[in-house]
Amino acid sequence: MSHTQALAEFLAGLRYEQVPDAVLARTEDLFLDWLASALASQGAHPIPLFEAYARRMGPAQGPARILVNGESSSAYFAALVNAASSHLVEQDDLHNSSVLHPATVVFPAALAAAQDLGKSGRELLLASIAGYEAGIRIGEFLGRSHYRIFHTTATVGTLAAAVAVGKLMDFGQEQFLNLLGSAGTQAAGLWEFLRDAADSKQLHTAKAAADGLLAAYLTADGLTGARNILEGDQGMAAGMSSDADATRLSDRLGSRWALLETSFKFHASCRHTHPAADALLQLMAQQGLRHEQIERVETRVHHGAIDVLGRVKVPRTVHQAKFSMGTVLGLIAVHGKAGLPEFHELSLTDPAVAAFREKVGMTLDPEVDAAYPRRWLGRVVVTTVDGRTLHGAIDEPKGDPGNSLSRPELEDKFRRLVQFSGARSPEQASTLIQQVWDLRHATDLKELR
Amino acid sequence: MSHTQALAEFLAGLRYEQVPDAVLARTEDLFLDWLASALASQGAHPIPLFEAYARRMGPAQGPARILVNGESSSAYFAALVNAASSHLVEQDDLHNSSVLHPATVVFPAALAAAQDLGKSGRELLLASIAGYEAGIRIGEFLGRSHYRIFHTTATVGTLAAAVAVGKLMDFGQEQFLNLLGSAGTQAAGLWEFLRDAADSKQLHTAKAAADGLLAAYLTADGLTGARNILEGDQGMAAGMSSDADATRLSDRLGSRWALLETSFKFHASCRHTHPAADALLQLMAQQGLRHEQIERVETRVHHGAIDVLGRVKVPRTVHQAKFSMGTVLGLIAVHGKAGLPEFHELSLTDPAVAAFREKVGMTLDPEVDAAYPRRWLGRVVVTTVDGRTLHGAIDEPKGDPGNSLSRPELEDKFRRLVQFSGARSPEQASTLIQQVWDLRHATDLKELR
Repeated sequence: MSHTQALAEFLAGLRYEQVPDAVLARTEDLFLDWLASALASQGAHPIPLFEAYARRMGPAQGPARILVNGESSSAYFAALVNAASSHLVEQDDLHNSSVLHPATVVFPAALAAAQDLGKSGRELLLASIAGYEAGIRIGEFLGRSHYRIFHTTATVGTLAAAVAVGKLMDFGQEQFLNLLGSAGTQAAGLWEFLRDAADSKQLHTAKAAADGLLAAYLTADGLTGARNILEGDQGMAAGMSSDADATRLSDRLGSRWALLETSFKFHASCRHTHPAADALLQLMAQQGLRHEQIERVETRVHHGAIDVLGRVKVPRTVHQAKFSMGTVLGLIAVHGKAGLPEFHELSLTDPAVAAFREKVGMTLDPEVDAAYPRRWLGRVVVTTVDGRTLHGAIDEPKGDPGNSLSRPELEDKFRRLVQFSGARSPEQASTLIQQVWDLRHATDLKELR
Repeated sequence: MSHTQALAEFLAGLRYEQVPDAVLARTEDLFLDWLASALASQGAHPIPLFEAYARRMGPAQGPARILVNGESSSAYFAALVNAASSHLVEQDDLHNSSVLHPATVVFPAALAAAQDLGKSGRELLLASIAGYEAGIRIGEFLGRSHYRIFHTTATVGTLAAAVAVGKLMDFGQEQFLNLLGSAGTQAAGLWEFLRDAADSKQLHTAKAAADGLLAAYLTADGLTGARNILEGDQGMAAGMSSDADATRLSDRLGSRWALLETSFKFHASCRHTHPAADALLQLMAQQGLRHEQIERVETRVHHGAIDVLGRVKVPRTVHQAKFSMGTVLGLIAVHGKAGLPEFHELSLTDPAVAAFREKVGMTLDPEVDAAYPRRWLGRVVVTTVDGRTLHGAIDEPKGDPGNSLSRPELEDKFRRLVQFSGARSPEQASTLIQQVWDLRHATDLKELR
């Protein structure tokens, strides 16, 4: 049996009863965290473009909910818009070793299909877990070489979303093999857009969720796909990776719950900036340093950080600011935090942040790079105005599994994000939070909106 | 100015008045040939799956026509279904040096958008020409290494379809750059499905046309894309090619009309079988050979033929039979032709065809390979039962630009394909033919159905 076949067998056999309670609870945590990110983008470019596209190309109403505007549509368009919107504010979750943002692709497809198919909260949770477990392993399989050119959340996201919807439809092993084939042959998404701060990140997640859902609906009706799309001679690894490791596909299926390794985002910036941001934050607190006392910050980073962040010198948009190491550390140093309000009100306009940005450099660090992507180590070397050299180090950024967010912290993050966009009133936010904590008892997901 | 910028400038500036009459007339030829392929697939798996998907996810009716069932939908779903259906019977056109099937991706997107936007026949023709000229050059740019893993009609087809719709919308150079970015970052499609005779070929063309159309509608509303998606460090060539040649993108823009180099398909099989089929057909006619007199046929082929055809030993489906060199030559040798009726009635069941199949081999030929993909040379070495060795050779398969189909031949092919599926009556076929020959005078394309 190939590794892909083993993965498909696991997905087909996965039962709600065998999922540990901690995994179910963490899935609810991740779902609430995802809802926060989706709602936080209400009204922000380019989300209204996707809403308009859904109105133009889709039905006037349907069984699935578009979160940002409260409208309804078919499952396809709900998945499309909800996935576009949940990856905009850079607050959604991340799995480290796969460099995959699972929530923004898995939940939009699973929720839209669950609403369309009349599934329960338990079925939604189980389907989402299947999507996470498959997506994370496929991301690890494709490896670092893939991520250097391809946006893993877009490419692998298509398969993760497809698996979640396939699990909702109770696919067997054969159907999962066909599904992976039809999803994998649609997998796309290139990092090139970063150079121009273009809108492709939203297009990527939108299409990954919607394309995955499309693959599942067509597979359910009988569309066949390549049975070895991951490992085959003309498959994804052959075309889009040079360091693929097939053993990752079947790594400890059923005993390792990869979903539990997923990190929550604390800062509202690209995850590659978080280790250094936390290391600097801790060092400044420990040493009682103010930003004016700092002459230089050299961040010691893994190669992926340079690939993704190296393009932005002077950010021109808020989105680009989230990918600017200097800007993120500037917000941290000057204002003590880098949340959505700081990015929108200060990241492009505060002269102190801009001045600090010029003091920040990135250097490839062999130790940090060797640990990556399993561990995201934060290392900064700070030179002070009075000539001292200080070393800051953290081994788990805030939000990582060993340094995670509690339910009160997650509720607080949810309220802050929803308040930021004004997408829901405080009362509506409380209702939504309660609905999510009750998810495993919900029989009707249409009221989740 | 980069080659991509030059291409975008050409596309933005292209005017109907500057297109030679021969190009306009050939575009009408190609359009009729495309309609034939789309209609020929009526009722055949997996096309009804795409029809059902459009019904489930799209509006109940809309401004654009789904050809195979006469229903209407939004432009997105019309493009999706029409593109799936026009690549099924292996009778649609091919551009040699790009190894791109332009019609099946360009026309579905352009027609659906033209019907949606109320455009004229002239605007449809100009938009389609833009799609051909861009798509062919992008296919040539990505080169042979791309085609070994990726289905160029799927990947490049996304950009070709996008360009056609962008031209319908009268995009300027900046919009075309953004459009290429948003289309290129969605480009996907792997050959792995061939091994299993899976349905991905239809998924590929469906998604290429629909994704390209989606990119154009979102770009028109303001979505930005990577400005250098083809040539950039993290763009298509970087991720999906090892022999890209950027000069091909701007090759003789405005003087070379690449659309004129497109071939029509005469046999109903994979184009990689045509050179050998024509060489064998000619040799048997010249020598008065019957199939029983032949002991062995060694076809001398280019590498791409082995990549695409090498998987199929004993075909299990009609579709696979079209990718079996032995079966195609068996139909040619035993029945004198390899059209749709021969494939459906004889390719899997005729013992004489099966016996002949076992006599056929493929060998890489350096001369044939060096000429490819610009020229598709046909070379066969036949050993007869009585011990003779005969050499067959043709330099332009039937349907190539130098050996093209006349309008009466195209009309005949159209009638045969439509009759094969029963999608239209002979009278309706005549009406459609006349509508296409009058295309450049049509003001309303809604009646084209």
